[in-house]
Amino acid sequence: MANSSGFIALMTDFGLADGFVGTMKGVIYTINPDAIIIDVSHEIVAQNVSAAAFLLGASYRYFPAGTVHAVVVDPGVGSERRAIAVETREYYFVAPDNGVLTRALAQEEVIKSVELTNSAYFLNEVSSTFHGRDIFAPIAAHLSLGVSMEALGVEADDLMRIPLSEPEVIQGGIKGRVIHIDNFGNLITDITRKLFEAVVSDRQFAIKIAHVKLNKISHSYADTPTCHTLAIFNSSGNLEIAINCANASEILGIKIGDDVQISIGNAGCDANN
Amino acid sequence: MANSSGFIALMTDFGLADGFVGTMKGVIYTINPDAIIIDVSHEIVAQNVSAAAFLLGASYRYFPAGTVHAVVVDPGVGSERRAIAVETREYYFVAPDNGVLTRALAQEEVIKSVELTNSAYFLNEVSSTFHGRDIFAPIAAHLSLGVSMEALGVEADDLMRIPLSEPEVIQGGIKGRVIHIDNFGNLITDITRKLFEAVVSDRQFAIKIAHVKLNKISHSYADTPTCHTLAIFNSSGNLEIAINCANASEILGIKIGDDVQISIGNAGCDANN
Amino acid sequence: MANSSGFIALMTDFGLADGFVGTMKGVIYTINPDAIIIDVSHEIVAQNVSAAAFLLGASYRYFPAGTVHAVVVDPGVGSERRAIAVETREYYFVAPDNGVLTRALAQEEVIKSVELTNSAYFLNEVSSTFHGRDIFAPIAAHLSLGVSMEALGVEADDLMRIPLSEPEVIQGGIKGRVIHIDNFGNLITDITRKLFEAVVSDRQFAIKIAHVKLNKISHSYADTPTCHTLAIFNSSGNLEIAINCANASEILGIKIGDDVQISIGNAGCDANN
Repeated sequence: MANSSGFIALMTDFGLADGFVGTMKGVIYTINPDAIIIDVSHEIVAQNVSAAAFLLGASYRYFPAGTVHAVVVDPGVGSERRAIAVETREYYFVAPDNGVLTRALAQEEVIKSVELTNSAYFLNEVSSTFHGRDIFAPIAAHLSLGVSMEALGVEADDLMRIPLSEPEVIQGGIKGRVIHIDNFGNLITDITRKLFEAVVSDRQFAIKIAHVKLNKISHSYADTPTCHTLAIFNSSGNLEIAINCANASEILGIKIGDDVQISIGNAGCDANN
Repeated sequence: MANSSGFIALMTDFGLADGFVGTMKGVIYTINPDAIIIDVSHEIVAQNVSAAAFLLGASYRYFPAGTVHAVVVDPGVGSERRAIAVETREYYFVAPDNGVLTRALAQEEVIKSVELTNSAYFLNEVSSTFHGRDIFAPIAAHLSLGVSMEALGVEADDLMRIPLSEPEVIQGGIKGRVIHIDNFGNLITDITRKLFEAVVSDRQFAIKIAHVKLNKISHSYADTPTCHTLAIFNSSGNLEIAINCANASEILGIKIGDDVQISIGNAGCDANN
Repeated sequence: MANSSGFIALMTDFGLADGFVGTMKGVIYTINPDAIIIDVSHEIVAQNVSAAAFLLGASYRYFPAGTVHAVVVDPGVGSERRAIAVETREYYFVAPDNGVLTRALAQEEVIKSVELTNSAYFLNEVSSTFHGRDIFAPIAAHLSLGVSMEALGVEADDLMRIPLSEPEVIQGGIKGRVIHIDNFGNLITDITRKLFEAVVSDRQFAIKIAHVKLNKISHSYADTPTCHTLAIFNSSGNLEIAINCANASEILGIKIGDDVQISIGNAGCDANN
């Protein structure tokens, strides 16, 4: 069971310009003046539930035990979609029930999940457009104070999950996809080090993405000459394609969902690369 | 009378790239190591006093009682414009006297306002270009420690106010304006729910903005089909024009100050919409 | 000797979108739940060690004594470049050994500097791509708890320094360079007030940058008519060229490294300006 620690981690697609995030923090501190609020990201692409799910899955476990993760990427705000809270061994999650918790919960044992139905823990007036301020911030604050999950609403077990992009092991290799592009333009794929090692093992291989073929995995960005394309297992254990000192997404013209393919053996190698 | 609570809310047009905001925080913590600093926004359009006044008016009351709101959007830095502090029942405000407090103070009872003349509460050296660091940050920090308004300077009652855009009730309807465009491209107008209900009541109406006509108020973004334009009363109670899942400002070509008109009766309706 | 105060100031080129900074904070709070974290900037131009060195040099001394400054602008992550911690009279600095501390250490007396070799103070698993999370954040957290420099690694005295742009006193004046462009588009040069006063004294002068000539130093942005170009000594004491209410960098077409020249006497004056 998670013991709340006073830490609240916020992830939204609100941006930082409009004061929405600051307002949520004001609401949190009004309820729990001792809360410690950590911004994970507020620059999720607007209403991109999948991108938020990716970031949450890659980052949530680096936070102190007992952290309440409040994730407000909520295209369905004001609709019938449920608002939920989920308790795992070490954390709490508060979010709309739209699949944004999928990747985090895939790594966690869920102890309890509730639909947020007890409006005693909301702000007095709930707007139809800003549940971040009116529902999720106050709920996160109350959880950080130790309010029990039971108090917040009714049990809700059939949480929505989004389909996760899964790489396929195909004839002669692996077929995966770009699932995230970071601030540096690096291309993060759904191919994990574990899968790669299981399938490719010690054999030669070629990684193909756009018009580029790569025949090795680098150990760091720095061990590749400047402006060369490289493949690396990143800090989350995913295969990442980068251009050392440049924006791979722009230069290669790659966007989220584009293919990356690994071919085993010499056939895939390109003498010119 | 406001009792300072240790909370300091910051709003500036400094952006986050240049370290100006971080420097202000360093100054605050040096004076009051127990301050709790909340960022409201640092991405006010450069020197746009009116936009900062709008954001402050919409957000300040969600912060804990006793919060010191420091607002540094200051085109006149280094000129003769006054620097002021204002105390209301629940809050303190620190800002240049350029009207940036207009919308907040229109909702508050002012208890005391002073011109910041006592340089004992400034940094030792005051530059002519960075009063956020040299004057407003230290003043906010001292207020958060409980220093009295009297100590900070001389009474200043005739604070500058900016003219607020006010919608007009015209023959057959209401004429208003776009007063803010948020991070999602939603268009916030000066027409409030209260005015709308008083003037339109139960009658049919048409909202006209750019080439678009709308005949109903939505209850949430989500109850409109994707990519359709909608009108909604937002979380501040203002009429907002949005495109569900897209940027209304870009798509409609609307900017701040543009007209929005409400016509009562059938005449305004558009059979094709 | 610096006594750690619990304050940790972060500067990176990670941007705020990807959750890297939030993850570093999660790591810090996991180690030191009482840390107080201050963001200086996370929008350093990617891998621009020189820009980070500039910002750090201009801002570090406004933070509380005992602050740990963690600077992660690290093009060489995963390479042989050392990771270091430096103790001065009032501060600690944690960074890759790539010269990013150059401008700060030029103003400080170094008491001790170590290469971070004791992996007991790193995260358990160290990736080759995210030392901000795996090394710098935990080291900063441990320093903020009072762990001694000796415990962190072996002495390292020959720290890398980057060559600093230095203005030249030339026949009839000074030749300098633009070393930073801020969020407003203002052009910060390497010419200090001290050098200017020593060389120019009370004589007439002309400041030439791009096609513009200026014959006076302004005392504030506001004492120049709107949209006029001005020269001013900024809050760091550097000569800065700005356009009042506009973006000087864009309008003048100036970038970092471009020349600015000061000519003494009438010859430099332009009757048309």
